[in-house]
Amino acid sequence: MNPEQRLTIVGLGVQDLKESTRFYEEDFGWSKLDSSNDTITFFQLNGILLSLYSKEKLAEDATVSAEGSGFNSFTLAYNTRSKGEVDHLIQELESRGVRIVKRPEEVFWGGYSGYVADPDGHLWEIAFNPYLPLDSAGNALGT
Amino acid sequence: MNPEQRLTIVGLGVQDLKESTRFYEEDFGWSKLDSSNDTITFFQLNGILLSLYSKEKLAEDATVSAEGSGFNSFTLAYNTRSKGEVDHLIQELESRGVRIVKRPEEVFWGGYSGYVADPDGHLWEIAFNPYLPLDSAGNALGT
Repeated sequence: MNPEQRLTIVGLGVQDLKESTRFYEEDFGWSKLDSSNDTITFFQLNGILLSLYSKEKLAEDATVSAEGSGFNSFTLAYNTRSKGEVDHLIQELESRGVRIVKRPEEVFWGGYSGYVADPDGHLWEIAFNPYLPLDSAGNALGT
Repeated sequence: MNPEQRLTIVGLGVQDLKESTRFYEEDFGWSKLDSSNDTITFFQLNGILLSLYSKEKLAEDATVSAEGSGFNSFTLAYNTRSKGEVDHLIQELESRGVRIVKRPEEVFWGGYSGYVADPDGHLWEIAFNPYLPLDSAGNALGT
């Protein structure tokens, strides 16, 4: 028996749940799920949920130490449908006060991308990848 | 203009791409995409991709320092369709040599979950959540 080839929730540990929730609601413009409460925030994405939860409580739930610093060794990518959309989105996010980590540029694999950070420094790559089609709902159609 | 409420790729930084690829192929039993190569591995999940890429190169791409240690402040959750499936999956993964971080137990929010780790310590929660329905393809139907 193998796990099916899917995942259900990307869970981000955060220092300040209110501020992180505000970031995704106001700066990203996303709507949280009604099942969110004072200790956890959920966003319905394409087939998966994004959750925001206290970093300390997340570590405690997993029975690991919450101590950690520096690069957290993962990124989330949001792919656009055009190169111009990368520029527009990053300009718009910057105008809302979002920290731009890397301005968009052509990258060696043939795409165009930049990075922004959420309040905890979780990195979002905003990318156009001409080799990775998206369906109309924005699902990745890998080859 | 807001980003749509979706993401495209969960990118994990890894120390040893061959070993991490082996882990997801053999221990999880997943099939990588043909677009994988000697520097990056892709798995098609439900509407999103999982990618494995050198931690150093991932940090370099984002123009951040690759230095980092301890808790990386995120988890990935794989939700099952029953409580028994959590036990079966974790037993099966353990029999394949996967590190079990937390044995399954009832949790305060009404579910049942445990945690396993990939070779870099990226945490996967294996969980049954009676309050989060999944569709037949395993997509989360948050409320």
